Amino acid sequence: MSFDHRKYQPYLPIQLTDRTWPDQVITRAPAWCSVDLRDGNQALIEPMTVAEKKRLFALLVKVGFKQIEVGFPAASQPDFDFVRAIIDEGLVPDDVTIQVLTQSRPELIERSFEALKGTKTAIVHLYNSTSPAQREQVFGLNKAGIVQIAVDGARKVKAEAEKHPHTHWQFQYSPESYTGTEPEFAVEICNAVLDVWKPAPDNKVIINLPATVEMTTPNVYADQIEHFCRHVQQREHVIISLHTHNDRGCGVAAAELGVMAGADRVEGTLLGNGERTGNMDIVTMAMNLYSRGVDPQLDLSPMDEIISVVQDVTKLSVHPRHPYAGDLVYTAFSGSHQDAIRKCLSKRKSNAPWDVAYLPIDPADIGRNYEAVVRINSQSGKGGVAFILEKDHGIVLPRWMQIALSRVVQEDAEHSAGEISSARIWELFQQHFMNQSPMSVKSYRLEHIENEQISFVIEQNGDMIVIDAIGNGAISAFCNGLNQHFGWQLDVLDYEEHSLQHSSDAQAAATVQVHCLGNRHQGAAIHEDTLLASMNAIMAAVNQALEQQQVQVA
Amino acid sequence: MSFDHRKYQPYLPIQLTDRTWPDQVITRAPAWCSVDLRDGNQALIEPMTVAEKKRLFALLVKVGFKQIEVGFPAASQPDFDFVRAIIDEGLVPDDVTIQVLTQSRPELIERSFEALKGTKTAIVHLYNSTSPAQREQVFGLNKAGIVQIAVDGARKVKAEAEKHPHTHWQFQYSPESYTGTEPEFAVEICNAVLDVWKPAPDNKVIINLPATVEMTTPNVYADQIEHFCRHVQQREHVIISLHTHNDRGCGVAAAELGVMAGADRVEGTLLGNGERTGNMDIVTMAMNLYSRGVDPQLDLSPMDEIISVVQDVTKLSVHPRHPYAGDLVYTAFSGSHQDAIRKCLSKRKSNAPWDVAYLPIDPADIGRNYEAVVRINSQSGKGGVAFILEKDHGIVLPRWMQIALSRVVQEDAEHSAGEISSARIWELFQQHFMNQSPMSVKSYRLEHIENEQISFVIEQNGDMIVIDAIGNGAISAFCNGLNQHFGWQLDVLDYEEHSLQHSSDAQAAATVQVHCLGNRHQGAAIHEDTLLASMNAIMAAVNQALEQQQVQVA
Repeated sequence: MSFDHRKYQPYLPIQLTDRTWPDQVITRAPAWCSVDLRDGNQALIEPMTVAEKKRLFALLVKVGFKQIEVGFPAASQPDFDFVRAIIDEGLVPDDVTIQVLTQSRPELIERSFEALKGTKTAIVHLYNSTSPAQREQVFGLNKAGIVQIAVDGARKVKAEAEKHPHTHWQFQYSPESYTGTEPEFAVEICNAVLDVWKPAPDNKVIINLPATVEMTTPNVYADQIEHFCRHVQQREHVIISLHTHNDRGCGVAAAELGVMAGADRVEGTLLGNGERTGNMDIVTMAMNLYSRGVDPQLDLSPMDEIISVVQDVTKLSVHPRHPYAGDLVYTAFSGSHQDAIRKCLSKRKSNAPWDVAYLPIDPADIGRNYEAVVRINSQSGKGGVAFILEKDHGIVLPRWMQIALSRVVQEDAEHSAGEISSARIWELFQQHFMNQSPMSVKSYRLEHIENEQISFVIEQNGDMIVIDAIGNGAISAFCNGLNQHFGWQLDVLDYEEHSLQHSSDAQAAATVQVHCLGNRHQGAAIHEDTLLASMNAIMAAVNQALEQQQVQVA
Repeated sequence: MSFDHRKYQPYLPIQLTDRTWPDQVITRAPAWCSVDLRDGNQALIEPMTVAEKKRLFALLVKVGFKQIEVGFPAASQPDFDFVRAIIDEGLVPDDVTIQVLTQSRPELIERSFEALKGTKTAIVHLYNSTSPAQREQVFGLNKAGIVQIAVDGARKVKAEAEKHPHTHWQFQYSPESYTGTEPEFAVEICNAVLDVWKPAPDNKVIINLPATVEMTTPNVYADQIEHFCRHVQQREHVIISLHTHNDRGCGVAAAELGVMAGADRVEGTLLGNGERTGNMDIVTMAMNLYSRGVDPQLDLSPMDEIISVVQDVTKLSVHPRHPYAGDLVYTAFSGSHQDAIRKCLSKRKSNAPWDVAYLPIDPADIGRNYEAVVRINSQSGKGGVAFILEKDHGIVLPRWMQIALSRVVQEDAEHSAGEISSARIWELFQQHFMNQSPMSVKSYRLEHIENEQISFVIEQNGDMIVIDAIGNGAISAFCNGLNQHFGWQLDVLDYEEHSLQHSSDAQAAATVQVHCLGNRHQGAAIHEDTLLASMNAIMAAVNQALEQQQVQVA
């Protein structure tokens, strides 16, 4: 029998009966360090290109990260080139410190300093692995041998730093596989490194305690952190940092309890990308703080942009049930939930603290809407509005469009009373999502040489406007053109196109979801020309955004 | 400024300074109750059909659930019909108890008992909402009014049960929105219900304490559970049950700490489906116990089947980084990780406890493989084997095939030393994933009347075999035919087909991932006929499974 729990061993927690962390509440955000460009990037089948890394780096800066690990330059030429590029091109703002990772080997440490030459401030992050499994099975060394690797590396880092006095250096050490390491030995090896680096008020050292693999319940990790904080030397000059993974689905919990246990700093990634099950998701942890009145020290209001960039560069989608970010997390399907939310929202006074049943935060904070999803047809067990549109009009709606349409139908149902017909649903769909006024695309010319070059004609309230633009593809060129001409920041989040079913002529239906004028909008269009269908689906979404803006202004 | 943390309030934890739960370790599994058919189903845009519910129910029984909430029959006709169907058709095994949910209203309670008529055992799950937000904003009642709703419901449940003495009834009460409720009031209302139901050794009552919305860090939930366990009356005859949600990404952690705090039972769903961010994922929590040597009391070895059924009925995909289940969780991309894993595996003695760096469990336990993903081309920043196949042969590989091929290339690279050419990759791909021996499909005839009816000819070692079968679609009919003829349990997990790029003739490339003979296998085929390409891709995967089985036998 292969499924047999007896081949696994219990995790032996440390005996810390006088722990104090369970009495703590987090009242301020830890210092955040993004490891998207190292941990996250290294766990991708298709690693990011330099252009993608720059795009992600710019996003991290925009969101407000002050410490960003930018790679492992000694281990990889693309990482080295990227670190050089952002330094040489002046892309690192003055208030942002970049961090690089290096194993404890002299030639790798030298190469890391070479990658960082000329930067104003930097964190050099040294690590070696310390668990019994790694010591015995991988390195074949005893504890003293492992301590020697760390100490030799720490000395080399210090010596290299002294050669470059114009950079402000900060040192970081990680006993890798910390959660698999005996707590006393973790303290011993870190103290040995601190003996070399001599932390001081103007030379604070970062000690990072990774749950390289999540091995037990998060309270045990918190016990370990509290134990470490008590026993590490010169605690007042040491910044305790956490770096958790999600193998048991508790990476966020472990980081939260670890901060309660005394940690000052948290490493993680946007939306939790990283090796295997991923790193701690900083978006979730920061939004958890935010939703309890604590300033997260990150601006997560451009959530759609965060999702869009992360999905583009990682080629991994965000799950529809991902906390705070997923497509389905601000929806309510059950009648009793919808009823409670409606009552709470209607009774809400504008300056009162947020207290709405079933909605932990106001979705508007991050440019989203609460969606009450109605099921027209629930009696049959075959649900909803989307089913009817597909059956009667051959249009297959993606999930996000189903949700958006459902909200419109729901609102209409509340005002009309009685059953909603298929014809009415189609009318509502056209009215809200296929609106070609005030703007629509009439014609275009497309040329592909190196980039796509597009020239297109828009009708706006009877006027014809010609716009020329370039881009990587036709749609991106089209959006570039609109953004340049109208000064928008239009971004296509999702896009689907299919040939129309139940239709003898070869028409295509395009559906899009865009971010435009501060909010998400959806649009659709049908046309024999697939590209015109796509462009007019975008125009329909834009028309919706313009209409909403007018309502708000008026 | 809309992104403003000041509109949210801190969560005030209870003062439980003498908590004992942080010293506990979970040494046996809680009683599990699946709520996939209620919570999970209710949060879908397209609710499950009766056929889909039956398929999911059969899976839950197979996995080993002894308590299954099957719906909210008084609120929904499809739920009512489904409950009647499984009772009338005798689909509920003797050792499985079904549970239904009802609000505390007399007509709904009566209808719930009607749905359950004739069943041998059942849990009737009564709830009403108890938080200040719900009391004041939704119900407009004071505490006494809310207690009265619960007590009236409890009396009605008891009276209805007495009318049906041939069923063995168990009662369950949930103070819904428990995590938003004052701890003392939660105890008060539950004690009032217990006064009616009078728990006894042969009449244990379930009190379920839902984190309807996850509102704070998981340690506070554990404090609440410990507080409740101390103060509820007749604790020895009360089964304390947890029902957590994942709004802060800590649903599993909260359930684990809650069990440490004294709970006996956990409600959740397979892979975490459910309203908004979903319910607690029972797969993750059970595998967490398993990986620490605790019998999870569920058989999760058919993980691929679990994933496949859940994805089919929910229409939601499992994220590639989902703990234990995701496509990427047994992969290693970094050279140092791959090196450590290789060393640990090679030194591992067959009966020794599992202790392999970076792999929390042996993937083989659940029919998976460890995958070392090599990047051929990492120096260019454009990674890997898949890129080369696409560039030189026009085949676009889905992620799971990229991973599988990468492993084959990695193994070959270790034996050959030196660079691997594009030609060699293509050769390896054909050899491992396009193998048409010993079996291949030569021809077929397809007819669609009500079902698909297929008749196909297989060549096996020179012999021709004719197989006739039916199914919902051509592929499912084909698999049915193979399974009936050869006695396999072949299941197609993933399937992709595209027209071949860089090719003047209109050929299609099909790639499939199947579960066959206890493991995952991948196959591919190219043909002008798209269906023949699909069928031979499946045959290639089967040929791989047969080859692996032969190696193991020999």
